[in-house]
Amino acid sequence: MVSQPKRSTPRPIVLTSHPAKFSKSIAIHWGEADPIKRGAIIGTLTTAAHRNVIGTHSGSYAVYRALAVASGKLDANHRADLTNTAPAALLHAHPAWSDPDKIVSLDPFGAIVGEVYRDLYEQGYDIKPTIAITKAHINMPELQDAIAKGRLQEDGEIMKKGGDLVVTKAAIEPVWYLPGLAKRLHVEESLLRRTLFEQTGGMFPELITRPDIKVFLPPIGGITVYIVGDPDAITDPNRSLTVRVHDECNGSDVFGSDICTCRPYLVHGIEECVQTAQQGGAGIIVYLRKEGRALGEVTKFLVYNARKRQEGGDRADAYFTRTECVAGVQDMRFQELMPDVLHWLGITRIDRFISMSDMKHDAVTRSGIEIVTRVPIPEELIPADAMVEIEAKKAAGYYTESEVLTEEALAEIKGRGLSD
Amino acid sequence: MVSQPKRSTPRPIVLTSHPAKFSKSIAIHWGEADPIKRGAIIGTLTTAAHRNVIGTHSGSYAVYRALAVASGKLDANHRADLTNTAPAALLHAHPAWSDPDKIVSLDPFGAIVGEVYRDLYEQGYDIKPTIAITKAHINMPELQDAIAKGRLQEDGEIMKKGGDLVVTKAAIEPVWYLPGLAKRLHVEESLLRRTLFEQTGGMFPELITRPDIKVFLPPIGGITVYIVGDPDAITDPNRSLTVRVHDECNGSDVFGSDICTCRPYLVHGIEECVQTAQQGGAGIIVYLRKEGRALGEVTKFLVYNARKRQEGGDRADAYFTRTECVAGVQDMRFQELMPDVLHWLGITRIDRFISMSDMKHDAVTRSGIEIVTRVPIPEELIPADAMVEIEAKKAAGYYTESEVLTEEALAEIKGRGLSD
Repeated sequence: MVSQPKRSTPRPIVLTSHPAKFSKSIAIHWGEADPIKRGAIIGTLTTAAHRNVIGTHSGSYAVYRALAVASGKLDANHRADLTNTAPAALLHAHPAWSDPDKIVSLDPFGAIVGEVYRDLYEQGYDIKPTIAITKAHINMPELQDAIAKGRLQEDGEIMKKGGDLVVTKAAIEPVWYLPGLAKRLHVEESLLRRTLFEQTGGMFPELITRPDIKVFLPPIGGITVYIVGDPDAITDPNRSLTVRVHDECNGSDVFGSDICTCRPYLVHGIEECVQTAQQGGAGIIVYLRKEGRALGEVTKFLVYNARKRQEGGDRADAYFTRTECVAGVQDMRFQELMPDVLHWLGITRIDRFISMSDMKHDAVTRSGIEIVTRVPIPEELIPADAMVEIEAKKAAGYYTESEVLTEEALAEIKGRGLSD
Repeated sequence: MVSQPKRSTPRPIVLTSHPAKFSKSIAIHWGEADPIKRGAIIGTLTTAAHRNVIGTHSGSYAVYRALAVASGKLDANHRADLTNTAPAALLHAHPAWSDPDKIVSLDPFGAIVGEVYRDLYEQGYDIKPTIAITKAHINMPELQDAIAKGRLQEDGEIMKKGGDLVVTKAAIEPVWYLPGLAKRLHVEESLLRRTLFEQTGGMFPELITRPDIKVFLPPIGGITVYIVGDPDAITDPNRSLTVRVHDECNGSDVFGSDICTCRPYLVHGIEECVQTAQQGGAGIIVYLRKEGRALGEVTKFLVYNARKRQEGGDRADAYFTRTECVAGVQDMRFQELMPDVLHWLGITRIDRFISMSDMKHDAVTRSGIEIVTRVPIPEELIPADAMVEIEAKKAAGYYTESEVLTEEALAEIKGRGLSD
């Protein structure tokens, strides 16, 4: 049943499209409260005339999809059968959904397209969710340990027997509203579009030729949200909310590398989430695919080598410099975009913010969300070799309750060498 | 020192390039043993005339790099300072490096560009490593547990006190040689290029306009390799080698979701690696960014909902069907490309292959690597809710030492409902 692109009848290749006088595509009015007025995001590849975005669905995985079509494994005309896929929770709209400035990097209606755009779908439009919401049980050895040590208790509902933690989770693909993104980054939209085109090596000429198309589905990783406790508590001013915003670090998150504090801080965040949920509130972990400060893992490992081999060894006072030498910047995570997911969830106040990052804190509060208490990583969770990172960050302005080291003391904080 | 793209002097935008009669770029002869004859991979954005690839470095993270340039945080002309970044190990070339068919999806010289292309770099070419190799200590609670239970021993060298495991690790960005990729997937190169362009929504028109450029740096996630023990053991026919090839599953690998066996099997693989290394061999974990069978996490969560809500509940006999309904295929991982990294490491024989996947097994053996023993996941490591997955896979031909269930018995293997 797989139809390959036909090889016998040559079909002209359209290198880039240009604005058409008449189009069958749905207009997008970003920030409209009514999803029908806002317009469905249509990244289909089956009916070009229906498209109203640049790029397509699934982020980076669109490239694998193309391989599947090329090799004849996937019918290019396949339209997702969305039976039974509707969100398992989190169906309420929030005021921020209709504020074109509060959310610019995801589609607030992305999870409920199967419901709100059912008519369009039945008319033949190929509409895909950009958000999926399910429920799960998770279990981490560190949480079992927290139970054994009495820091956490099983309650049979939020935390079940054996340390099984009940969560609601959402996967979110990036949907960029380019005028909003430009405003957020304080650049002109035309400059943003041109730079996105040129500085990716010429990805998507429609960034240039289709100024009328305002939405871009970039080929990057997305976001996962884990919610512990009752999702309704998130927006209830009388119930407490704990949040950790965590940027991917595969080396620590999965493999437990001791050069940083990523997994220990993540686990501490989950522990705090469980406690808040058990007290009647809710806890949220936001996991963003921004490996190595969005510089990628190759750059990260190059920097590790440079740090450990520099004169005087790996030192807190030279922590950020090495990254700048290799990458030209210290960080490319653009925390300015991160609060979007919090607004999508309807958050207006975070009681416990499990992060020391001033960049994250400032991005969240500037976006209009109140942070009541900041929670640093407990000292005992910091691996020995990660002291370089943590002291460098504290000296650079990260939140801490302990003393910030002097420049001399900072130079004394050393990590392991490459051959140790 | 940051130079933004100038706004005042209009500069023409080149929507796509076309083959030039004269070019200052280095020719690439894929499969040449001498890196100078093979030619450096140059994905620079500073000097267009030097480019000899489609796309640019850092996979998906090129998009964030573009944001950094657009917002004036990164000098578009920044060239990486590679001081002290050279590989911490794994510097030997292997015969497969000069076989144009054995490696088509990464650059075998990607880690040593700072050394082999030093002259070009000094002439002003902007050459970046696509592979970085460092050393690290990792520590996972499950390994500490294995020590406590006596399955693993600390030896002070491979596994240090407190369960710290010494590893050599490599991060690898995708570098696709399109003629080789086409051959591997059994399609014509022109069809592959056209489909890659069209089925991504028009990414990189140079796939069409520059048939003379054969190398593509796709904006997708890469690979991380963890090596336990002496790297020289990998190619020593007299020493044993254990390998697990693991495709990313964020929900299990990081958060311990109980719907699948990903993290338990990964940890078991590491345990096997440690044992082999302590016996004088080496162990390797290959971690590939192919979330949700390369369908992405949104599709994965949609499928979870469909599985758990279908008539009769989540059942092993309907495990693969639900993925096909949503995605059009069961799997998009293209294991055909996976053995490249094994050939890059010089592997010709795997003594213990920690995987039940027949797709992985067949891809590895077809590529000319011998697999001596296949190691299924120990029964006691399978979470209760993951029985649906494991029995469905066994029935579909995955390797097992236990009995494969009949169709009737398969229908009886049920998972938890969404609200449980």
